Amino acid sequence: MIKPRTPAGVMELLPREQIAFQRMLDVIRRNYERFGFLPVETPAFELSDVLLTKSGGETERQVYFVQSTGALAKEGEGLPELALRFDLTVPLARYVAEHEHELTFPFRRYQMQRVYRGERAQRGRFREFYQCDIDVIGKDALNIRYDAEILAVIHAVFSELGIGAFAVQLNNRKLMRGFFEAQGVVDAHQQALVLREVDKIDKRGADYVRETLTGADFGLPADTVQRILDFVEVRSDSHADALARIEQVLADAGEAASDALRAGAAELRDVLELVRALGVPESAYRLNFSIARGLDYYTGTVYETSLTDHPEIGSICSGGRYEDLASHYTKSKLPGVGISIGLTRLFFQLRDAGLIDGIEASSVQAMVALMDDAGLDDALDIARRLRVGGINTEMQMEPRKLGKQFQYASKAGIRFVVLAGDDERARGVVAVKDLQREQQFEVAREECADALRVELEQARALAGR
Amino acid sequence: MIKPRTPAGVMELLPREQIAFQRMLDVIRRNYERFGFLPVETPAFELSDVLLTKSGGETERQVYFVQSTGALAKEGEGLPELALRFDLTVPLARYVAEHEHELTFPFRRYQMQRVYRGERAQRGRFREFYQCDIDVIGKDALNIRYDAEILAVIHAVFSELGIGAFAVQLNNRKLMRGFFEAQGVVDAHQQALVLREVDKIDKRGADYVRETLTGADFGLPADTVQRILDFVEVRSDSHADALARIEQVLADAGEAASDALRAGAAELRDVLELVRALGVPESAYRLNFSIARGLDYYTGTVYETSLTDHPEIGSICSGGRYEDLASHYTKSKLPGVGISIGLTRLFFQLRDAGLIDGIEASSVQAMVALMDDAGLDDALDIARRLRVGGINTEMQMEPRKLGKQFQYASKAGIRFVVLAGDDERARGVVAVKDLQREQQFEVAREECADALRVELEQARALAGR
Repeated sequence: MIKPRTPAGVMELLPREQIAFQRMLDVIRRNYERFGFLPVETPAFELSDVLLTKSGGETERQVYFVQSTGALAKEGEGLPELALRFDLTVPLARYVAEHEHELTFPFRRYQMQRVYRGERAQRGRFREFYQCDIDVIGKDALNIRYDAEILAVIHAVFSELGIGAFAVQLNNRKLMRGFFEAQGVVDAHQQALVLREVDKIDKRGADYVRETLTGADFGLPADTVQRILDFVEVRSDSHADALARIEQVLADAGEAASDALRAGAAELRDVLELVRALGVPESAYRLNFSIARGLDYYTGTVYETSLTDHPEIGSICSGGRYEDLASHYTKSKLPGVGISIGLTRLFFQLRDAGLIDGIEASSVQAMVALMDDAGLDDALDIARRLRVGGINTEMQMEPRKLGKQFQYASKAGIRFVVLAGDDERARGVVAVKDLQREQQFEVAREECADALRVELEQARALAGR
Repeated sequence: MIKPRTPAGVMELLPREQIAFQRMLDVIRRNYERFGFLPVETPAFELSDVLLTKSGGETERQVYFVQSTGALAKEGEGLPELALRFDLTVPLARYVAEHEHELTFPFRRYQMQRVYRGERAQRGRFREFYQCDIDVIGKDALNIRYDAEILAVIHAVFSELGIGAFAVQLNNRKLMRGFFEAQGVVDAHQQALVLREVDKIDKRGADYVRETLTGADFGLPADTVQRILDFVEVRSDSHADALARIEQVLADAGEAASDALRAGAAELRDVLELVRALGVPESAYRLNFSIARGLDYYTGTVYETSLTDHPEIGSICSGGRYEDLASHYTKSKLPGVGISIGLTRLFFQLRDAGLIDGIEASSVQAMVALMDDAGLDDALDIARRLRVGGINTEMQMEPRKLGKQFQYASKAGIRFVVLAGDDERARGVVAVKDLQREQQFEVAREECADALRVELEQARALAGR
């Protein structure tokens, strides 16, 4: 006898939780499709030499390699032939380069699959987790307008997910670079080091950061450090304020404003204006000049998204604009902009914070009770009618005490119990018990599905879905 | 520069094909949920000692093992710690045993995920493929009625998939065993060998099979062999005929009918009657006494499903009743009944047979054209209204010649192109071009989403979906 168990670092859910998770996946997918993004799925494993072109370093150490029994026996030199994807970006690059001549650009794709990382086992760290990505890939160039569209998608997704107030934090790497250059921090690596120190403000306090940056390692003048600290603390509180903050950065730089600074400011301005034209309310986005994201990768717009009432969860959706998606696979220049939602981690944290409603309704909407074997054919007919009418229906296949059947439905989160005894049968009706509203009613047998559908749609409308 | 490519034996689709594939997944899932099955997902990798309890042999040789870079470096003795699942049945057994006390039985679950096998590379053989499974698991016992429900699910799924006429081929292992015992073929292993020979009828002809079975290896009397051949050729052609065929087997056995034969006949009869009560038309199922499936695993009802006009595709959905799901993991007796659809293989074969409509509509339903930059904000507003109204809408972010934009929409399978020039804007309307019906019409800007939704629902109703 083997003890049934899963490996450390995977999330496996009980059915009720899985329903909640699936609903989130559905909302995300529906909104991605609503904005015209096309589905892509790639294999879980890729050829190792294709997958591991760029990295080395951190990523490679976290890669899971795959070997069939035959390959294991051979144990050749070098890396195994196959490896599990560790994100959806490298597979996207490979996909776009491989199918370049069969795709139309700009290419909008969404991809929602699991990825794999050999992380150290730790609470909240996953070795297998869902990513839900969208990207728009251009050929040679990609209009800044897509950066605004991506922000509108983030807004649509998190509005419908209904997990509380949120704001997309917006920044621009060019603006950031231009600002740092104007402060005399010209080298990109040095900028990265400064930003890493600045990131410690929340934990270590401003004084610590100020000391470090004016100290021997960095040697920055005190007034420069103050300007940097002022800059990264910028958070706009309205659309107009966001535009004003950008103008202020330009004004502060004055004649010394570099091309990068001007370009970044213009891009941010465009994104803000288009986001408004797309109907995104101004409470849903703000400038945050401390957002940097992967410094090597992103080159323009960068996004993070945070839950207003749960800042401790951190960013729930991040991404940005990059120069060239697939330089390892093709000579074509493929700039893009995209975001990723790490849904497994998000679900885990929402559940931890009590934001996943544990008693959410089941995907099963109705249960047909069975009182005795003589009523079986009739009950099967009722179930059939409900299903044809679009109601997800579970059938009790063996008669049990009615009380037990109600108890079961209630515990399972099934809203309606439908049944017909001799009396109901004679009158061509069924009895419906609504466990949610604690009401009972009768309805003509052939109208039962319609009646339940109306009730369910009402509930959905009330819940704002 | 690395050549972008996928490993052999995986299926990767272009977006239009992926949309068709996704629609099939959606139909299957919708019907599984309609019958009250609950979603389960399990991790792609399991602990090797948990995954490989039973097998050895054929299965183990096809297993993919998973190792992180760290584990690779260590290269200990024995098997790697992790392995990719090769089906969804072993993970289900592990899941049910692990969560036994948190589940309610009978437990109806569906699971639609990819599985992995180290198959020899060959056209139409996949190393990664989707399985779409449902099972009902009982505790200690499971009523035969669930076997009928499963058949009704198969019928619902393939009716809605709309890939042509199909029939569920039905048999019962007990009946089969009883029949063979009555012919003096008592040993289960011997029965398996006989069945394997009988399976060659289509390829080698009846005479070849007759010679083999009467020959030295088997030594069966000629009249016994004839009875076996007659038996396995049974195909019912109506509900009444199916019942009559069962009575005939019982009548032929007469007094000598074993308990197994009687039990199998009774089960088949029950399943047939309940399937009818569930409203499955009799054209959709038939007895086929040659269906055996995994002889070690299935113990009662067995199903295969074939496309009437494409018998060469073979079974597109198979399964059956088993005695005990998880004997390796728990002492509880967990009988079950289930089926599996191998969707990757099915999709591949349907496409090969020209049954996947390559020009099926995109998931994108409308495109908002852009005539000039001055109209951008207005076009964004139209797109927003369409999306809020539930229409999947792609926005042209850069102005191009209108002809080019129509061409693009047409090639992409987008049905509606929506646009507003100065004139339309002044009158508060938008112009809609329906590329499918080759019509153009105007509609008030705020009614556009509703108008398109009506058209799309009409199209769906006409297509019978």
